Amino acid sequence: MAGKAKENDNTIFIGEKPFMNYVTSVIMQFTTKEEDTVYVKARGKFINKAVDVVEVARKRFLEDKIEIKNIEIDSEEFENKEGRKVRVSTISIEMTKVK
Amino acid sequence: MAGKAKENDNTIFIGEKPFMNYVTSVIMQFTTKEEDTVYVKARGKFINKAVDVVEVARKRFLEDKIEIKNIEIDSEEFENKEGRKVRVSTISIEMTKVK
Repeated sequence: MAGKAKENDNTIFIGEKPFMNYVTSVIMQFTTKEEDTVYVKARGKFINKAVDVVEVARKRFLEDKIEIKNIEIDSEEFENKEGRKVRVSTISIEMTKVK
Repeated sequence: MAGKAKENDNTIFIGEKPFMNYVTSVIMQFTTKEEDTVYVKARGKFINKAVDVVEVARKRFLEDKIEIKNIEIDSEEFENKEGRKVRVSTISIEMTKVK
């Protein structure tokens, strides 16, 4: 649905793609797409990659133009294929344009 | 110096040790040592381990007893042995007793 796609447009989920793809996405959101707020989200082993993406975007490319507004961590417990309970941590980093 | 050691007593740096060592340290700080505030800190690849430690401590062992008060991320740039500039991200998670 077009409406829903737009709704999540300013959220970047960090995964297996090359590091700089995500940095570029963050920069594009703030520049070309003129978003005031961008969320960088990740789960499990991608959490440190998410932190790296945010740090490189805000310190190397958008210095003094964006800041971190809020960081939340959480976790979900679920059963894996073998029936064992597994907990996966998540992070959500909210970045905003400096006014 | 004894004073300095005490000062950093409620900070747990996440590294190579087994996961549950760190979870136990967090729990001990809040219970045996009766700290009101505990900081969990990590650099680079240990950032997701830090998030996991906090999540397991607060959801499995100290449920409804501790909460996350503040999370900060940052990064430091330095030259490695080969003279290349390297950026390392850091995280600091502040946890407090629920009043």
